[in-house]
Amino acid sequence: MSTRTVLVTGFEPFGGEAVNPSMAAVQGLAAAPPPGVALHTLILPVSLARTGPALRAAIAGLRPDVVIATGQAGGRAEISVERVAINVNDFRVPDNDGAQPTDAPVVATGPAAYFATIPVKSVVARLHASGIPAQLSNSAGTHLCNHTLYLLGHLAATEQPGLRGGFLHLPWLPEQVVRHPGQPSMGLPTLVLALKTAITAACETADDLRVAMGATH
Amino acid sequence: MSTRTVLVTGFEPFGGEAVNPSMAAVQGLAAAPPPGVALHTLILPVSLARTGPALRAAIAGLRPDVVIATGQAGGRAEISVERVAINVNDFRVPDNDGAQPTDAPVVATGPAAYFATIPVKSVVARLHASGIPAQLSNSAGTHLCNHTLYLLGHLAATEQPGLRGGFLHLPWLPEQVVRHPGQPSMGLPTLVLALKTAITAACETADDLRVAMGATH
Amino acid sequence: MSTRTVLVTGFEPFGGEAVNPSMAAVQGLAAAPPPGVALHTLILPVSLARTGPALRAAIAGLRPDVVIATGQAGGRAEISVERVAINVNDFRVPDNDGAQPTDAPVVATGPAAYFATIPVKSVVARLHASGIPAQLSNSAGTHLCNHTLYLLGHLAATEQPGLRGGFLHLPWLPEQVVRHPGQPSMGLPTLVLALKTAITAACETADDLRVAMGATH
Amino acid sequence: MSTRTVLVTGFEPFGGEAVNPSMAAVQGLAAAPPPGVALHTLILPVSLARTGPALRAAIAGLRPDVVIATGQAGGRAEISVERVAINVNDFRVPDNDGAQPTDAPVVATGPAAYFATIPVKSVVARLHASGIPAQLSNSAGTHLCNHTLYLLGHLAATEQPGLRGGFLHLPWLPEQVVRHPGQPSMGLPTLVLALKTAITAACETADDLRVAMGATH
Repeated sequence: MSTRTVLVTGFEPFGGEAVNPSMAAVQGLAAAPPPGVALHTLILPVSLARTGPALRAAIAGLRPDVVIATGQAGGRAEISVERVAINVNDFRVPDNDGAQPTDAPVVATGPAAYFATIPVKSVVARLHASGIPAQLSNSAGTHLCNHTLYLLGHLAATEQPGLRGGFLHLPWLPEQVVRHPGQPSMGLPTLVLALKTAITAACETADDLRVAMGATH
Repeated sequence: MSTRTVLVTGFEPFGGEAVNPSMAAVQGLAAAPPPGVALHTLILPVSLARTGPALRAAIAGLRPDVVIATGQAGGRAEISVERVAINVNDFRVPDNDGAQPTDAPVVATGPAAYFATIPVKSVVARLHASGIPAQLSNSAGTHLCNHTLYLLGHLAATEQPGLRGGFLHLPWLPEQVVRHPGQPSMGLPTLVLALKTAITAACETADDLRVAMGATH
Repeated sequence: MSTRTVLVTGFEPFGGEAVNPSMAAVQGLAAAPPPGVALHTLILPVSLARTGPALRAAIAGLRPDVVIATGQAGGRAEISVERVAINVNDFRVPDNDGAQPTDAPVVATGPAAYFATIPVKSVVARLHASGIPAQLSNSAGTHLCNHTLYLLGHLAATEQPGLRGGFLHLPWLPEQVVRHPGQPSMGLPTLVLALKTAITAACETADDLRVAMGATH
Repeated sequence: MSTRTVLVTGFEPFGGEAVNPSMAAVQGLAAAPPPGVALHTLILPVSLARTGPALRAAIAGLRPDVVIATGQAGGRAEISVERVAINVNDFRVPDNDGAQPTDAPVVATGPAAYFATIPVKSVVARLHASGIPAQLSNSAGTHLCNHTLYLLGHLAATEQPGLRGGFLHLPWLPEQVVRHPGQPSMGLPTLVLALKTAITAACETADDLRVAMGATH
């Protein structure tokens, strides 16, 4: 197997936080890249206007085999591997430019949803095998995380056939939770290991696992 | 405004439970129907093979203006008004016939997702105004609840244009939670009031509210 | 068995809430008192200075056999039957007079803790048998609820030997939770039934159940 | 200030777990002891019959200034610094010898409760300052964790005046949570840092902070 070109993205902080676990994890990954892949990383702006262009430009330039985008999911206890993105921008909080769309499409002419094109169940299974709390999630929300996964799906469906694109939602870092009493967190070493594990699973697995990982609701 | 024909469905118990809050609530609604609408109710089987045909037959016979389907969401504290259904059957637990599909489509030729065609944010707002805990949800899971909402969307898009179809996930009843320590519940009177309130909102509202009710993740 | 004299207390609203589930439940109980007991009810002020004197005066006047005090436990999903009260006033939020003691004793000369003198496990078991979510709790906090249970223990140990005193923490009402998204609640009919059930259990049971209801942490 | 002698204890695994975060954290601490203290560590058996004697023997031999005992609190998201222990053994699950007492006292002639004698609020504040999720807890449960803290209080009150004794409940490790979907965890590096931070706070602080850290329930 030839060396895979992999792009991993995180987001800058938003919503009043000083840090973003996805930015910290991507920076940690860049500092200790996994062997066997050509790793590129990118910190995306939290911006309705700028996230998509930045992502698109990086993909056009790198022509990656795999893109794993990541973002913050404050309040979740596990790594969430997202199965699907919907064609909705409905921002509960404004982005870092102050934009706050309501029930607007991500792509005006796009379908209602795109499914992730990485092998999501294989990623969850590998994370579990590495001792990392993880779940398959059926909603990436309606903010820029969902927006990013939708765009990856749209690129794979239109301009970049064969692109494996996926999204991982990461819990808050421990230091963030000091301001959110009682909420779960995940330490940076675990987050970085999760990204490495997800890259391996996404690169090595051709067909996803066919096991039950659904949700009753 | 002419009298609206409304179909409200619930599900029979499944997953080892003796009751289903959606069945109990629909029966309670039928015993005290709201004025001003022609109300029909239906308890659906928890069956990959039989849920769809039962729903389709009822709609073909009644030609309802509005269909509100309901189901159990064990562990949730609020009424969840579902925004979207995805084209996936991925059953975490078998249905009552023992069927357990994995990553199969609901409709083989259907799109990736359908959005609910009731005014979901108006329903949430009315529930709140009635003092009922409620949220807009971006995932109905991947079991028969999602399946049912997907089919409603498919019918509205193909055979029944103009159909307003939606799905409400209901918390466990208090008596169920005795077997699920620490989990939230909602009493039957509140559930029945929620259904009445949702019917009113779905019948009276032409255009949905344009307010932020999204999720960051 | 002679008719038991029972005092049930609730608290007025505090902490910015318009209602208190304990006040609503006690008022609902007073409007439909259970047969076979001489029921008295009292709404206590949320006041470090006034809660104790009001409780003590009522008990001195009524000489009740059983006192069941109740209060609000926002965020809990179940009725909490409190096992123990500690000799600490450490108020996270000020009381309704603006008082906010830190690490002060409830009774300067009192012991570190008092155990409830109602049969707490029998109450939990009866609640479960009535289909009401309930748990045995090992902490009543450090605000006026704990304070009240401590005082009941102190009265039973000093001035009112034989007094059966206990405390039930009640979840938020559904209408309160509209302002606390995602939090659990319990409807008023269930709360009133819980109080009736607890009264019966506390009056009829001489010796508590000897079953495991502890907590590992 | 002379060098303090510090004993830190953890527990062996129990309840079907392969590991115990408290054992792992204490072993990690022993492998990289903090400067300036004479550190001793001990892994306690999960045994009604043997926990107390092992703890008592170690304290009699070492004559420590500070004892920080630790245990597992599965399901909690933060480090819990325990304020108080009650005189109750009420085991929800049997210990590793199969013993399961119900409503028995820890010390037959002991008081209803003992308060921790480390400066608990200072420990919480130092943990927060180090970016570690932590809370002051008002219940250590009714199993061997509570039992251990009660014994520390009893020793301080009887045989070892001046002993500073406290208890920290630790979340599950990430690898444990793979078997407990959706539950929070905390990584080993954070746990070890928490122990070091707690030791420093317990050794350096003579009088505890007087700030509000109570619970309303």
